[in-house]
Amino acid sequence: MTYKGRAKEFLERNAIKVWDKVIVTTKNSSFEAIILPGPETDRFIYLKLPNGYNLALNINRIMSLRKIGSISASYTLPKMHVSIMENLPEVSIIHCGGTIASRIEYTTGAVAPAFSLEELSHAVPEIFSIIKPKLTMLFNIFSEHMSPHHWLRISEAVHKEFVSGARAVIITHGTDTMHFSAAALAFMLDNPRGPMIFTGAMRSSDRPASDAATNLIASALLASESNIGESLIVMHAGPHDTIFSAHRGVRSIKLHSTRRDAFRSIGMPPIAEIDIEKRAIRIIHSNYRIPSNSEPKLLSAFEQKTALIYVYPGIPSDIIDMLVDKKYRGIVLAGTGLGHVPEYLFESIKRAVDEGTIVVMTSQCLWGGVYLDVYETGRRLKSMGVISGRNMLPHVAYIKLGWLLGQNLPEEKIKHLIEKDLRGEIISRESVVSFM
Amino acid sequence: MTYKGRAKEFLERNAIKVWDKVIVTTKNSSFEAIILPGPETDRFIYLKLPNGYNLALNINRIMSLRKIGSISASYTLPKMHVSIMENLPEVSIIHCGGTIASRIEYTTGAVAPAFSLEELSHAVPEIFSIIKPKLTMLFNIFSEHMSPHHWLRISEAVHKEFVSGARAVIITHGTDTMHFSAAALAFMLDNPRGPMIFTGAMRSSDRPASDAATNLIASALLASESNIGESLIVMHAGPHDTIFSAHRGVRSIKLHSTRRDAFRSIGMPPIAEIDIEKRAIRIIHSNYRIPSNSEPKLLSAFEQKTALIYVYPGIPSDIIDMLVDKKYRGIVLAGTGLGHVPEYLFESIKRAVDEGTIVVMTSQCLWGGVYLDVYETGRRLKSMGVISGRNMLPHVAYIKLGWLLGQNLPEEKIKHLIEKDLRGEIISRESVVSFM
Repeated sequence: MTYKGRAKEFLERNAIKVWDKVIVTTKNSSFEAIILPGPETDRFIYLKLPNGYNLALNINRIMSLRKIGSISASYTLPKMHVSIMENLPEVSIIHCGGTIASRIEYTTGAVAPAFSLEELSHAVPEIFSIIKPKLTMLFNIFSEHMSPHHWLRISEAVHKEFVSGARAVIITHGTDTMHFSAAALAFMLDNPRGPMIFTGAMRSSDRPASDAATNLIASALLASESNIGESLIVMHAGPHDTIFSAHRGVRSIKLHSTRRDAFRSIGMPPIAEIDIEKRAIRIIHSNYRIPSNSEPKLLSAFEQKTALIYVYPGIPSDIIDMLVDKKYRGIVLAGTGLGHVPEYLFESIKRAVDEGTIVVMTSQCLWGGVYLDVYETGRRLKSMGVISGRNMLPHVAYIKLGWLLGQNLPEEKIKHLIEKDLRGEIISRESVVSFM
Repeated sequence: MTYKGRAKEFLERNAIKVWDKVIVTTKNSSFEAIILPGPETDRFIYLKLPNGYNLALNINRIMSLRKIGSISASYTLPKMHVSIMENLPEVSIIHCGGTIASRIEYTTGAVAPAFSLEELSHAVPEIFSIIKPKLTMLFNIFSEHMSPHHWLRISEAVHKEFVSGARAVIITHGTDTMHFSAAALAFMLDNPRGPMIFTGAMRSSDRPASDAATNLIASALLASESNIGESLIVMHAGPHDTIFSAHRGVRSIKLHSTRRDAFRSIGMPPIAEIDIEKRAIRIIHSNYRIPSNSEPKLLSAFEQKTALIYVYPGIPSDIIDMLVDKKYRGIVLAGTGLGHVPEYLFESIKRAVDEGTIVVMTSQCLWGGVYLDVYETGRRLKSMGVISGRNMLPHVAYIKLGWLLGQNLPEEKIKHLIEKDLRGEIISRESVVSFM
């Protein structure tokens, strides 16, 4: 019991213990929940709701609290009985952590990464009728803690799988920065032998409404059948339970913090749609890259002295100045509109360029991209030496610039390659329907 | 003529002058354009396309160039004959600049603000059958150059109009940062007497396809008939020529850099839809604020030492450290997912809070908002003293925090008000259809 004072008394008075299932009645509503062992508090009790979210509720707001059961705080992993079917395509699953592999952290009541890979496999028995999985535990962290260093490790692990003969790789990953890792892998691994599919979950695996299993099944279906040689993100396509989208890794972004269909393709449709009920894959964007016949090539260097700066009215020029003082080699600006910044930043940007920092402009609008020739502000930035990121997403331009700087190329070559499409990150024409 | 070397020779050889209308034929296409006086160059010629965009074309790519006419580089303002109809509602139009009032900058070929207010009014004669406009030229800048200082001036000007009896105010403004200014005005002007409508244009007024006139007509219709007491953004609703959306200023963002329907309401539908053909206003979100009976109240202070930082894998903690060193009083973080940052930032964030900086967390996902209780990362940030921005948009949280800090309130009061809905900036429940 971590409660104290009035909260502790309140629970004791109602004969409720931590991990009891209860019916909570407030003035406005009545709902089922599990009492969590919250952090020390004397006014709130912490509840796990059936939808998986936690709620801190002031005890003054509770009209009644009735026990209807209890759960066990620790549970034993059921023994696995998995029949591996040898005639199925072998697909490597590389595990990097995230909600897909998380359960309640029982010391705090919050969700923390804890699920083992065995547990994960156990939770999705269907997968063994689609692919012959080969499991690798690379690391187990929430994706908000990923850094470029982790992208290198993911690329190395995927490269190893392809070299060992894998025809597809699934990477289980937290959703917070999945679009960053998917973009990084696209650049760092050239000539992939097949799809490199990032998937995760918006709701943790110990919840009935979790999307962990369905996302893995959709990923396995795509991995087993597709002939796509790209870095992809596979997650729910919309409110449907059985339809999933395969987004191009360098054109996707997480646009919702809670929904299962949190990811969106920007400026183009998803490459494919996967129906897990019909076990069907429908190609939407047929202009995808096919697997390469050449040797998979690992290009996993990243210049840490690369920064991404979001521009806004009032942004201090000190931020740019500091990066230049610290000898940053690349700065990506997420400018306003067609790629603009306030005039008072010009001096700092000019100094950055003059001192050899490569400055790339992108648009914080996400859709539409940069055109530095339309307005005076864009023309002035261009004349200072700012490079257009064209319609690259800001986070993708950041990764591409850091990656190019890591490859030890001449400065002029880097500037040239920034504006050139290398992995489908720059689109020739925005799909009209992609802007919603 | 600003061309030199080969570009100059090329034009002379084809007997083409600047401002000539031409048919350009390249290997792949043939199109009409106007020759612009580009910056000094010996390889490119600058073309204005019929859609209004400028194009720099390498002369090597041109197969033929045929003159079909010419335009005049300077034109005389036609004399205005406007009949002011006295029985129409008086609406104040405050002019702040932007594309809505721009035309080609003839020295460079780019678009620069130059249109006078008289020209603007002349361009939209329809407006005089809807409202009796009262015009104020506040300033004339592109909105990427706006800073909090301009927000104060806009608020003061709008306050002055309401105090003088205006029932509605239209603010013409560049679109790049229109959503920032619309949010700032929402906080800085309490008890508005009627709608405060921001409008602008995505295509400059000297182009046939400009949306300047239609946006102004839609704004005038809403101003003349609506009983809404909010800061709004009125722009095209979709690809339709005649349908416009009125977005709540504190819930809107520019999500496209080129389309006329660049703005979107996040987490809620637009408040109203305006059909300029039928001259009809349809309320979509009926839970809007009505005009106040109290005196309009100007609260136009803003703490400049407020910053907005977009979080990404690899972000240097130096950015936070520098802001704290420079005694920033407020930092809004646009975190990943439910409001997360990489663990290596914790130390800098903790120091910020400990030294009295108010740190507010928002989600860069835009939709869904922040929940600091679900994951361990959120819990740890909360325990350090990071305040939840709930579902406020990152740029709105930045403006709200800077504004609250400007009001000289006690720190605890500011922290309390950040999490409290003041102007519709925090929504109680996200509209399912608002996520596209």
